[in-house]
This record gives sequence, C-alpha cells and structure tokens, in this order.
Amino acid sequence: MDAAAFRAAAHAAVDRMADYLESVALRPVLPPIEPGSLRGLFPESAPEAPESLDTILADYDRLIVPNATHWQHPGFMAYFASSASGAGILGEMLVAVLNQNPMLWRTSPIGTELEVVVVDWLRRGLGLPDGFEGLLTDTASTSSLVALAAAREAAGTEAATAGLAARDDLAALRVYASAEAHSSIEKACMTLGLGRASLVRIPVNERFELMPHALDVAIAADRAAGRRPIAIVATLGTTSSTSVDPVAAIAGIAEREGIWLHVDAAYAGAVALLRERRSHFEGWERADSIVVNPHKWLFTPVDASLLLTRRLDQLSAAFSLHPEYLRTLDRATPVRDFTDLTPQLGRRMRALKLWIELRWFGLEGLRRRIGHHIELARELANAVDADPDWERLAPVPFSTVCLRWRPERLAEAAVDDANAAIMDAVNRSGEVFLSHTRLDGRFTIRVAIGNLRTERRHVERAWELLREAARTVEADADLP
Amino acid sequence: MDAAAFRAAAHAAVDRMADYLESVALRPVLPPIEPGSLRGLFPESAPEAPESLDTILADYDRLIVPNATHWQHPGFMAYFASSASGAGILGEMLVAVLNQNPMLWRTSPIGTELEVVVVDWLRRGLGLPDGFEGLLTDTASTSSLVALAAAREAAGTEAATAGLAARDDLAALRVYASAEAHSSIEKACMTLGLGRASLVRIPVNERFELMPHALDVAIAADRAAGRRPIAIVATLGTTSSTSVDPVAAIAGIAEREGIWLHVDAAYAGAVALLRERRSHFEGWERADSIVVNPHKWLFTPVDASLLLTRRLDQLSAAFSLHPEYLRTLDRATPVRDFTDLTPQLGRRMRALKLWIELRWFGLEGLRRRIGHHIELARELANAVDADPDWERLAPVPFSTVCLRWRPERLAEAAVDDANAAIMDAVNRSGEVFLSHTRLDGRFTIRVAIGNLRTERRHVERAWELLREAARTVEADADLP
Repeated sequence: MDAAAFRAAAHAAVDRMADYLESVALRPVLPPIEPGSLRGLFPESAPEAPESLDTILADYDRLIVPNATHWQHPGFMAYFASSASGAGILGEMLVAVLNQNPMLWRTSPIGTELEVVVVDWLRRGLGLPDGFEGLLTDTASTSSLVALAAAREAAGTEAATAGLAARDDLAALRVYASAEAHSSIEKACMTLGLGRASLVRIPVNERFELMPHALDVAIAADRAAGRRPIAIVATLGTTSSTSVDPVAAIAGIAEREGIWLHVDAAYAGAVALLRERRSHFEGWERADSIVVNPHKWLFTPVDASLLLTRRLDQLSAAFSLHPEYLRTLDRATPVRDFTDLTPQLGRRMRALKLWIELRWFGLEGLRRRIGHHIELARELANAVDADPDWERLAPVPFSTVCLRWRPERLAEAAVDDANAAIMDAVNRSGEVFLSHTRLDGRFTIRVAIGNLRTERRHVERAWELLREAARTVEADADLP
Repeated sequence: MDAAAFRAAAHAAVDRMADYLESVALRPVLPPIEPGSLRGLFPESAPEAPESLDTILADYDRLIVPNATHWQHPGFMAYFASSASGAGILGEMLVAVLNQNPMLWRTSPIGTELEVVVVDWLRRGLGLPDGFEGLLTDTASTSSLVALAAAREAAGTEAATAGLAARDDLAALRVYASAEAHSSIEKACMTLGLGRASLVRIPVNERFELMPHALDVAIAADRAAGRRPIAIVATLGTTSSTSVDPVAAIAGIAEREGIWLHVDAAYAGAVALLRERRSHFEGWERADSIVVNPHKWLFTPVDASLLLTRRLDQLSAAFSLHPEYLRTLDRATPVRDFTDLTPQLGRRMRALKLWIELRWFGLEGLRRRIGHHIELARELANAVDADPDWERLAPVPFSTVCLRWRPERLAEAAVDDANAAIMDAVNRSGEVFLSHTRLDGRFTIRVAIGNLRTERRHVERAWELLREAARTVEADADLP
C-alpha cells in the first residue's frame, strides 16, 4: 500500500470510526450471541491472494462491529470502565504510524524521553513527591508483577540471579494483601515463582478495608515460623467494592518491618488528581511503588498502566540485562533504557497518546469529568438507599455502587438467584452492561461509573432497568 | 471531543500520517541528538487548561517526529526490522476506536473468537499441524515467559501454587538454550524465579548452532548432580547471526528426557510461510511451544507476538485464576477466556490488525516480500564475499548479513575499533541504521533486511556507505 493508497484508505477508515462513535449508544452494549457462534463465520485459512480493502472493511462492518462488546457505549458500567477518548484514539493513530519501540534510548529517543516527561506529569498531577519515577506498562497486572519482582530483589533473595528453587539459605517468602485485593496480585505471585501459597490474605473490616492489626499478627506469625515477608500490597479502590485500605497505617507497618509496600490504585488512583479528594490517598507517598491505570479512569485507549516507584534501582536489579546486540555506541549515558525495568524487551510508545490526551483535556478537564462520575455514583447510591426494596452493600468512596434487590418479602435463600436474574435481564436489554461480585458471600451487582461517555441519563436508565427487572423477577416468582 | 470534532481531527491526523509515510525516507533514520537533549523541551507539568489540537499537533510535528528513530525508514536495518504496513496501521486505528479488551469471551466475543481464527490462519500458513493452538501476546519476551512458565508447571514443580522457595522437595531447576539464545530467555528465567543461574548456555558450533551432543552432556551432568531439567529452548534464527539450531535433534533429546521444548523463531519463523524454505524448520512441529513475531517480519505494528503450543492446559495451570468478579453468566462455555493463558488480565485486540493485514497482503503477498528480502541478503552476502577487504562472519540462512572490514593490512588489534568507527559513521550519515553484535568475541556489523520499505537500492546504498566509511577510517588511521 503506497502512501497515496494509505491516505485514501485511512480517510475512509476515519469516517467509519467517527460514525461508530456517533452511533455506538444505539447498539446493544453486549452482542446478543452465544459463545462459539463467531468462529465459523470466518474461513479456515488466510487467503492466498490479496483482497481489496473495500471487501475487508465491508466484512469489518458486518462481522466485527456487531459482535463486539461495546466498551465505548455510555451504558458500559461493568468491571471498571475503560473508554478511549477521541484524543487518545488520535494518539494511537500517530503511535501506529511512527511504530516506535522505545526499548532503548537509541531505538526511540523521543519515545524514551517523552515517557519520562509524561510519567512526571502524572506524578505531579497525582500529588506525589519528587522521589517517584516510573514507566508505562501494558496493564496493572504487569505493573504489579514488576513491583513485586523488585520487592523480591529488595528483600535480598537474589531471585533474579540465583533463583528460588533448591536454596537451603532461603526461607519461604510471603506477600500480604487484603482478602479483597485483585487477582493480579495472586497471578504475579504465581508468575514470579512465589506461588499462590506465598500470598497471605488479610481479613477486612465491614467496610472491606484491610485490618492493620490482622496484618501485624500475620507478619509476626510468619516471622515466628521462619518465613520471610517481602511485600505488602495496599489497595486503594478494590475491584469488588472500591474499598480503601488504610495506607498510612500499612505504610507504618511496612517501614517497621523493612519490607516493600506496593499500592494498587489501578482504578481509583485517578481521583488523586482532585486535591479535595486526596484524603483517601494519605500515606501512599510512603509506598515503594504505586500503580494507576490511565486506560481505566483517564480515558486512554487500552493499553496503558503507570508504575511509579521510589526504588528504580530494584526494578533494574530484577530485569536489567545487557547482551552485546543491545549495546549502543552513544557517547553520553542514555537518559534511560526502559527495557531495563520490565520483563519485556520490546514496548509500544504509550507516552505519545498520554501526552496528547493530557494536553487536550488539561488537568482541569480530567478533574471535572472524574468529579462528575463521583457525583453520579453518589446520586445512584442515594436512590438505592431511599428504596426499601434495595440494599447498598458497600460504601461508595469513588464511582462504583454495589447493590442488590432485597425486599423483606423475599426469602434470603432466593436473593442471590433473584439478583443474578435481574443482572442478566438488564444485560440482555442491550442498554446497559453491569457485572457482579460477591461481598460477604452475597451476590452483588456492581454499577461502575467512569466511562467517558456516561451521562446522568444513562445512570438513571440503569437504575430504572434494574427496578424493572426486579418487578419482572418478582412477578415470575409469584411472591406474596 | 464529540464525534464531529473527532472526525475533523482524525482526518487532519491521517494527512499527517500519509505525509509521514511519503517522506520518511528523506529523514535521517537516527535523529542527530545526544541523550538528555529532549526532556527539557517539554514543560515540567501537564497543562491545567485544555489546549487546542492545532497546538498539540504542531508540537507533534516540531518535537516528536524529528526526534524519533525511524523504524519505518527503508534504511532501518538495525536489530530485526519492525515495520508497520499501511494495512496494519489501519488495523490499529480500528482497534483504538473499538477499544476492546478480550480478556474474557464476554468482554469481547469477536476479539476472542477472531484471535482463535487468526492464530489458526497463521498456524496453517506456517505449516504447523492441527494440535497447535495459541494466542497473541505483546512481545516475544512475554511469549517465551509464558512458555517457560508452562514448562515449569508441566515439570510438576507446582511453582504457580506452592512456589519455588523453601521447598525441601524441589531440586534445582534447569533450562537449556544455546550460547546464542536471546536475552529474553534469560530474562524469563529471572522473572519466573528460576534465576539466571538456572539457564545453562550450551556451546555452539562454528555456524553458531547449538550442539546437541553438548546438550546431552549438560543434561546428564545436571541429572547426575540432582538437578531437574525442565525446558530446552531451540532458536531458529538467533539474534546475533540468525543461526538455526538443529531442532529435530533437539526435539529428540527433549522427548527422550520428557521435558518441554520451546522454539524461539520470533524473527525467522515468518520464513516458514515459504514452502520451499521449510527445511530450516523441520522438527519444530515436535516442539511444545513456538514463538513467531508478526511485529517483526510480518509487517504488523508493534506489538504482536504469536505463541503456539500443543499444551494449552499447561498455560492454564500456570496462569488461570477465577475470582468472582471475572465470572460471567454465559450459558454456554466460553470459547476461550484468554486471560487464563497469560500473566496479564487485560489485553489489546491484536487479532484485528492481523486479520486485516493477512487479507490485504494475502499469504502470497507476504511470501513474495519475505522471499525478496532473503534474495537481497544473498546479494549483499555475495558482494561481501567478493571483496577481499571484507569478511562475512556467519552463514546467511535468512535476511541478515554479519560482516566486518578486515583488510590484511590492518592489525588484528585494531579491527574491532575500526568496525565500531565504520558503523558509527554509517549511522551518523542518517541514510542507514545498522546495529552490531559480537561473534566469537569479534565486533560484528549486522545488516538486517526485513523492513517492508527496504528495496534493493537501499541495501546497495548501505554497502556503499560501509565501504566509504572504511576508506575514511583507513585514511584517518594512516594505514600503509
């Protein structure tokens, strides 16, 4: 495809893209299909001969778009929202054409130095002190894995060099996180060879927040048993209920014990842009590492996760390698070779889309949108609280409301199934997509606000659909 | 940014993108700057107020583009090429606007099933049998890490559950790869807690190919010492010289020993699309896992790495976790939840760009381009062989030529410095970017052909520049 053909094709693609954004709210959020129904729509083999772009794009319209789950839909309130702003999409377009690989300074000077700049812009915006530096990874899973790998080295295990197996000198290693901490922490323990067994789940209080005293007890018990604590993970905004672990108290414990503190603020960290809401985060500046995901509540297209740390040297200890074919003849010292800090060698130029977005929104623009989402969640929480048939199952520190239908006339044994049926009905409406969790063992519907395109009317509609579905479930169940 | 504003802005961006592709060959491949010169060009903080797109894009033209290393430049022959085709860039545009996250079937039915389709298209194209299934990851580093994590589980270590530390029952673990294997294998051992110490580097022959007898000896010695071999990595196309390990013989050893065989064909695997060149790969179908990178020689924008395996169950053993908030109410079994197979939860919809590219090029179109690159490398190798002042340092099975200036009149002690100076001069020309390695301890210039936009004249020009630089070095050195 020469540049002229590319120009024509890309203009045609842009019209498709703008049409999509214009009409996405009219589509069903979830495609009304069952698993396995798509694969057979495609040929078994790639074509031998080239096909025309017209044919391919017509198939894109026919086969791809209608079968997507529409993360860009204003009714997408499942999981945590991940919506791509227009500015972010423009960023991805420019990222694709430059096709940088900022693994070394030499392989992308601007990719490298712009990442340093943008990481620092975010650090300042979040109100974190100078000592924090960092990088952009693909996902919070990777950011937390990198943090725990650094913690593993900082604890003096020499895991990256000597390894963990068959070492007489090495105690069992332990990582602490709340019972509500995200599965990515457990997965990082699996990947790093610490094993799921290394993760000690600390009980939470009735607000789903880690209890520092229980953490103290667990660490003391492990030390007494000859195990070696290497890291604590505090979550600011857990996945199920967005609960906020008491990070200042936890930081005190980490400091006393001399172990790494990692803060998982993948979802809620964006709220620290708002000065008036920083109380949730007090103490996180004492962490060794912090993850905040721009591809969640900062409207950046997937993928982009920010990892900040005060101990970049420990990331290097975990990941730096210098084979000859990656050495360069630069006369000055590279500003940074980002590959020294991650499990991957190659990487995308994620800084570019963030640089464009941060300038296009401005910090004020981001604060305004995030603040509005928090307000919408508060309004929904109030509506739930005001309805005697509904129950709110957790505090709402940010923008996610945990709720269930719980009329007094309904037997407790029937509540979980009723709420599963309600959520399923709402999701099948195509107007809204919600996900669930369990809190204290109870089936909990989550309404997660944070999509760039979600407005008050969409949240109101979600609430209306929930109550409609409850009425249907009640009628079907023939309750008294 | 509403859809109308996005439409206008994106059309403006497309013109910039097409202009870039039209003019990239006129830019210096490497920006003529020193490390540290860019960071100061940007403000210390993100702006408070929004800025206009015109301002931002003007800065993009002024600050970003001139300071990029131009991977899209036809003179980029460093490392292994990674060039983004027009079709691939279109794919990235559509990926960005759909913003799918195919972590679960439910979160992107089409992202999930299309990935199954495209992975199978590539498998068939590469001539691999039915038993291979797989996924797309970000990089070969991740693909190899996933493979070795699966190997770790397949060996019965229970690393993902029990962990590797403080286990009386666990022998020291060992992974085998050639002295020329890529650093990503070593990094995977670091990340996985196996440690660099677990990687046994097997000597290579004079063609830089792993010697199976040496592998036999190493495994036997480790077993005798009570260590547990868990994986062998065979490289088809090493980074320094593109040497080809004897995979059939190695597969025989892996089968006899009952350990995992991973094949790193990140660069050269694309050549298996050409039936007449499959002899290099004979035996790879006996591997447990294989990595081939579409973002190298299949012209896909960064990032996209293909991991194929016959043992998907072991990937699940290494990475599968099912917290409640990731469960869905789908009535049928999901086709696949890709997050079960990787260290990351979230992921990009990489399948879309590959689907577009594979159709746009057709397998024939890809074969023709790859075949042409191999021909260009052969021509350069012949030119080097014909010049008495130059020496070729390795066979050329694919498209990378390893060479150095080695006139008889030059003292051996001066050869390395002279070649470093030659490469540096060529790179400073701005017309061509080459990288180096060491083979048998000797400074080796690599000319890596595989960029979509590289034509015969660019390779000829690289050769001309090398000889010119040698003449200058010789004049400066005042040789006899």
